[in-house]
Amino acid sequence: MRGVNESRKERHIMLIVEYDGTNFSGFQKQANARTVQDVLERAIEKVVKHPVKLQFSGRTDGGVHAVYQVVKFVTSSRMPINSFIPAINSHLPDDVVVKIAREVGCDFHPRYKAKSRVYRYLIDNGKCPSVLMRKYTWHIPNYLNVDAMQEAANYLIGIHDFRSFHASGSNLGSTVRQIFGIKCARRGRFVSITIEANAFLYHMARIIVGTLVEVGLGRIKPLDVKYILEARDRKAAGPTAPAKGLCLVKVKF
Amino acid sequence: MRGVNESRKERHIMLIVEYDGTNFSGFQKQANARTVQDVLERAIEKVVKHPVKLQFSGRTDGGVHAVYQVVKFVTSSRMPINSFIPAINSHLPDDVVVKIAREVGCDFHPRYKAKSRVYRYLIDNGKCPSVLMRKYTWHIPNYLNVDAMQEAANYLIGIHDFRSFHASGSNLGSTVRQIFGIKCARRGRFVSITIEANAFLYHMARIIVGTLVEVGLGRIKPLDVKYILEARDRKAAGPTAPAKGLCLVKVKF
Repeated sequence: MRGVNESRKERHIMLIVEYDGTNFSGFQKQANARTVQDVLERAIEKVVKHPVKLQFSGRTDGGVHAVYQVVKFVTSSRMPINSFIPAINSHLPDDVVVKIAREVGCDFHPRYKAKSRVYRYLIDNGKCPSVLMRKYTWHIPNYLNVDAMQEAANYLIGIHDFRSFHASGSNLGSTVRQIFGIKCARRGRFVSITIEANAFLYHMARIIVGTLVEVGLGRIKPLDVKYILEARDRKAAGPTAPAKGLCLVKVKF
Repeated sequence: MRGVNESRKERHIMLIVEYDGTNFSGFQKQANARTVQDVLERAIEKVVKHPVKLQFSGRTDGGVHAVYQVVKFVTSSRMPINSFIPAINSHLPDDVVVKIAREVGCDFHPRYKAKSRVYRYLIDNGKCPSVLMRKYTWHIPNYLNVDAMQEAANYLIGIHDFRSFHASGSNLGSTVRQIFGIKCARRGRFVSITIEANAFLYHMARIIVGTLVEVGLGRIKPLDVKYILEARDRKAAGPTAPAKGLCLVKVKF
């Protein structure tokens, strides 16, 4: 028999969520816009029958996808943990899905406890765009030199001030971040750029990609990326790559 | 200097086309529906400045995709062959693209000269659906036994009367076709079924897939597929798999 205290015990539920960012104005809730957070919170509320506020690992931009976004909510619901997935999914549209649900300690926080985030950017380097992949890739018809891109990327690995790679005016705090690794790889017509960092500045992944593409096209040299980093000036770096090629693929704790 | 005859010479242009079938009512033109043929013909007409009527390799159903549909048109245009791709693509929506353009002889016919068509069906066999692949896969959460599916598929290879695998009432001609090969393969969470045949009856690929899935789920045995084939009765076979998992991947001449 459950006592009153036990039945009201708060439970902390972590979810791993996948979404297609195409028709979302990003993850974070905002007025008059369709956001992943809002869609998720409403679905969870229908299941747990009380208001919830999500914590989450990464604030992805509009058009950016995720196959591994981590969120957490607190609930008084006594629903078995395995029932959360089908229950929440039954209230979600077809461009968001909950893949994993797990009970976690109250000290777990998807943002503050995350040690690193991994983003993958996908480029369609075929002459004509792949129609089936058009919402998940940036189409660049000119051949990219992936070796040169990797050489350039290596200058960015480590603890640096990434001010050159953050959208100007978007952050008042420190612009120092640690990149653990960047891997540029070709597989057939597709080129992927996978970046793992402790955290990302606003647009940082997309500006890094835009700059590495300049290298891949031969417009700048790999070594130039070292000078761009040292310039600490957004104007030194390349353009911001389109959102649709970017995907949050992992959060590590 | 070109003579009058030469300038009016008819040219036969073959195109290889990719499309996302999601928002099309199939390839073939029909009244009051968005079809690939209609969209393509209108784009080509804007380029060549005269009416065209496309010949094509495969009449894909609504929702079925293609990465290699072959079409042909006849034109009096003297545009260089390499200019057709960018010119036509500039008039196409983002769910169709021309990938290859080639001048062919007047006896080339994408349908009658085709020796075989290859269709690939993609199943998402993960517990929760892959959101990013939802428009290109059939989600089946229960684990599929791919070895059993392959064993069953082998009974279908060869020249057979495929009446059990064609949508009833849809064809008055012969239902004999030759399947050159079927390959069932797992790659991670995805299961693909690739079928090469001289030609396909209406819904044939999707009914074969629906039947092989029954085997993969253990509802029927591989040997049952031999009896289903011999029954020559649509009611003996499994359900028709959803259109969205199917893709025309190659036409061989």
